[in-house]
Amino acid sequence: MSKVTLYYFQAKAAVEGIRTLLAYGGQEFEDRRLEFGEEWLKFKPNTPLGTLPVLNIDGKEYATCLAISRYLGKKYGLIGDNDEEAFEIDQNVDYITDMRQRASTTYWERDEEIKKKQQEENAKLYPAMLDKINAMLEKNDGYIAAKKLTWADFHFAGMLDYLKVILQMPDLTDKYPAFKKIAERVYSIPKVKAWAATAPHTEL
Amino acid sequence: MSKVTLYYFQAKAAVEGIRTLLAYGGQEFEDRRLEFGEEWLKFKPNTPLGTLPVLNIDGKEYATCLAISRYLGKKYGLIGDNDEEAFEIDQNVDYITDMRQRASTTYWERDEEIKKKQQEENAKLYPAMLDKINAMLEKNDGYIAAKKLTWADFHFAGMLDYLKVILQMPDLTDKYPAFKKIAERVYSIPKVKAWAATAPHTEL
Repeated sequence: MSKVTLYYFQAKAAVEGIRTLLAYGGQEFEDRRLEFGEEWLKFKPNTPLGTLPVLNIDGKEYATCLAISRYLGKKYGLIGDNDEEAFEIDQNVDYITDMRQRASTTYWERDEEIKKKQQEENAKLYPAMLDKINAMLEKNDGYIAAKKLTWADFHFAGMLDYLKVILQMPDLTDKYPAFKKIAERVYSIPKVKAWAATAPHTEL
Repeated sequence: MSKVTLYYFQAKAAVEGIRTLLAYGGQEFEDRRLEFGEEWLKFKPNTPLGTLPVLNIDGKEYATCLAISRYLGKKYGLIGDNDEEAFEIDQNVDYITDMRQRASTTYWERDEEIKKKQQEENAKLYPAMLDKINAMLEKNDGYIAAKKLTWADFHFAGMLDYLKVILQMPDLTDKYPAFKKIAERVYSIPKVKAWAATAPHTEL
């Protein structure tokens, strides 16, 4: 079996999907969680792009969250049945990414005034975006795309807790029960469930 | 031949790569450029995700820029020779996208105070990001990834003028001649060249 290490921070964020994909694939991996301060700054120059996550497979390094998720999805047969379905997964993930990045930019903004203005702006946009994602799920029998389990579901399920925090919507899954159902679906897969039982608990 | 229409605005931005990919594929298409105001707002509810670009192929709609670019890349044999190369393209495009989105957020920010603060922040980050992209090109014989022509080169070449504007660096290609070489390489492909000669000139 390959020797695999995933480097990221002590968080789920958009990277938990990579962890659950590895678990689904039956791939043992070292789950290295770096401290955001000094440890990360020391490690950063050794990464391919100065960013995390980095997945190391037998010495070869893979960077950026969505590229890694898609790559693992392909490896584990979670990329749809044809180019049309692979496209639909990418399209729907791109849409969700737009919302996630908007929310995370605001969440991590240190200037209180900018943060407040962005929050006001976001509050006008989120309902329509969330409704659109919900409609996506309804159209796809509860999955993100292609009416079947794909890497997009692992990606979304893994970051659901993170989304609640960065969207500042603790009641997100009460409003959108379909979001919770995806997470339940992914986390009830035996290999994922077994891995998650051993994973550290993090709020984000 | 399929009946194809691309819906976007009167701009190159990150979507010109889709136009040049269609040209490369020998695909005739209607290049619909909507006015950003009323025309767009009237059109918006009829799009799959409330966003542009939308590519319509024989009545089937495809949305989001990167998903469409990757899909066309696959269709026209521009996705690398194996899963490792397809990954590398995705990874490097993800990195470039991070910079592009940061720059475009600031460029389109309407609050002058927020804009100024973001510009100061960005000024600290751009040099390292641009150097990283330049190193990417050097490592790949002048291409974005996989040491060969892929959809990533069309994507990057098409948005080079846009990057100059949103990064506020009119001298971008003087500083990074390798960026210009990609554009020259893509735009000297006969089918792309012929299409570009007929395309409207836009600053962005």
